[in-house]
Amino acid sequence: MAARRPALDEATLIGRYFARPLPARRGVILGIGDDAAVTRLPAGHDLVTATDAIFAGVHYPRGTPPRAIGHRCLAVNLSDLAAMGATPLWASLALSLPRARAAWLREFAAGFFALARAAGIVLIGGDTVRGPEGATVTVQGRLRRGTAITRSGARPGDGIWVTGHPGDAVAGRLLLARRGGSRALRQRFLYPQPRLREGAALAGVASAMMDISDGLHADLGKLMCASACGADFDADRLPLSRQLLAAVGIEAAREMALSGGDDYELLFTVPAGREAQLARLTRRWALPVTRIGTVRRRAGLRWRLDGAAFRFRDRTFRHF
Amino acid sequence: MAARRPALDEATLIGRYFARPLPARRGVILGIGDDAAVTRLPAGHDLVTATDAIFAGVHYPRGTPPRAIGHRCLAVNLSDLAAMGATPLWASLALSLPRARAAWLREFAAGFFALARAAGIVLIGGDTVRGPEGATVTVQGRLRRGTAITRSGARPGDGIWVTGHPGDAVAGRLLLARRGGSRALRQRFLYPQPRLREGAALAGVASAMMDISDGLHADLGKLMCASACGADFDADRLPLSRQLLAAVGIEAAREMALSGGDDYELLFTVPAGREAQLARLTRRWALPVTRIGTVRRRAGLRWRLDGAAFRFRDRTFRHF
Repeated sequence: MAARRPALDEATLIGRYFARPLPARRGVILGIGDDAAVTRLPAGHDLVTATDAIFAGVHYPRGTPPRAIGHRCLAVNLSDLAAMGATPLWASLALSLPRARAAWLREFAAGFFALARAAGIVLIGGDTVRGPEGATVTVQGRLRRGTAITRSGARPGDGIWVTGHPGDAVAGRLLLARRGGSRALRQRFLYPQPRLREGAALAGVASAMMDISDGLHADLGKLMCASACGADFDADRLPLSRQLLAAVGIEAAREMALSGGDDYELLFTVPAGREAQLARLTRRWALPVTRIGTVRRRAGLRWRLDGAAFRFRDRTFRHF
Repeated sequence: MAARRPALDEATLIGRYFARPLPARRGVILGIGDDAAVTRLPAGHDLVTATDAIFAGVHYPRGTPPRAIGHRCLAVNLSDLAAMGATPLWASLALSLPRARAAWLREFAAGFFALARAAGIVLIGGDTVRGPEGATVTVQGRLRRGTAITRSGARPGDGIWVTGHPGDAVAGRLLLARRGGSRALRQRFLYPQPRLREGAALAGVASAMMDISDGLHADLGKLMCASACGADFDADRLPLSRQLLAAVGIEAAREMALSGGDDYELLFTVPAGREAQLARLTRRWALPVTRIGTVRRRAGLRWRLDGAAFRFRDRTFRHF
């Protein structure tokens, strides 16, 4: 009963921008266009489901290129599948827009489907509604029964590892606002790369895993809390990128790495007995993997730098 | 990097309002609190997935009781599972709010979980974000392999049937704005009842099915289009409720039934050879089921009243 004069009716919008031929062998029995999608999970697998919402002005600045928004709404969800060690299968997209503009939708769809193709995930349905600019995506993936890597498996003595270069994304976000600085950093914010291959490869190696979305320090706290442990860290082992160091200097770089958020890197723990296995695995990765600390029995996170306690300003993202 | 002073942090909010003990025997291996949920589908079943978003001021009036919003965001999704003939299993909720207020959340959760319990669906995860007031839900259900009731199976000669009383919901919505009139009609808008038992029971009986969300006439058009058929209807067979007739009179009642929307009733077709089966089935239902027309080969929808062509003003909901 709301908008009487459609700019673009829903069926046309979906047909033009979101309905794509279904790739073979993805288990999709019925895709976009009915009341719901019907899919088939391979035998011996469990289903993994994650949902994340992003809104303009909250999760990305207004004026962010629509291609990057299309990429982002899927990437943040794929990152959750990566953090379980799951393989992506199907995505549903609820897209909300104040009005349907062709140029915006074309770019959004280009960003969404470029990543979907790369990740091997198929869009099976969703909803398009008039409302505030934002997108909520639900992804479904699979893993062999009993192989999910949860947050609760870390044990005292396990090494704590992180992929990539935390802090780059938040620096990129700040640079975007100033319309200058390192293109590499801006791209790190605009096009986060879900660590799907790495996450899946860590099944049987990592004892616990999660992705970094709110900020390394806060997310480490959640990982340790779920595992009922604490941890010791060396702030000088933080894998700060050359671009980040060049852009903001070492002190701000450490702060950004610890509390910036939006990294979508993997944070995981590995028992001492599996370190050789981890080394063999990561030797083939282009992505750096860095040990930043050790799990201990006592609760709490303790950061040290040059042998002394290290304090930093907490800029962590708050959901509310 | 957005809101610095949380009214209520995300973990507390989820723990207080949304984390509930997992019911046994629902296939949930890992629920709320990790990066993603892990679930197990029973053997011999396919997975059914639907996603629908609702926003304040678009899909429900601002000021709608939060209990009704919690009910609604789940109900509109369960209605999609009903329309496939699927049995609900798991739900994910992405809740967006300008700020987290305890009283609002308590009521919202009460509405959500009351329906979830009645429908046998388990909340397995989601997201809570600061943003415009709205909720996006994804539901997952199951059905025996190959038994999905799609929109495309209607054939010439099939009868066209509808459950309940279309038009009541839109009348209820209009009455809400005036804060008066029939409570029954207002409840029909505020608390739509997904027709889950009826949808599941129609497997093997209905040749095609969908739910009415945008409006009976428009949704009939989609059903016939998907089945590459047309249809003839009798407007005097429309199942108008006594409350609706008393509130607005017969002419407005017909208009509301045809183009009001928000009904969440089932619309389905049944081949002549299965009418006896349908009669046996529906004899036990409290819900009325009415034949309103017949599928024909020629495309287009033709409404007749007292033997003459029947025209009505189209008030159908537009997504954009």
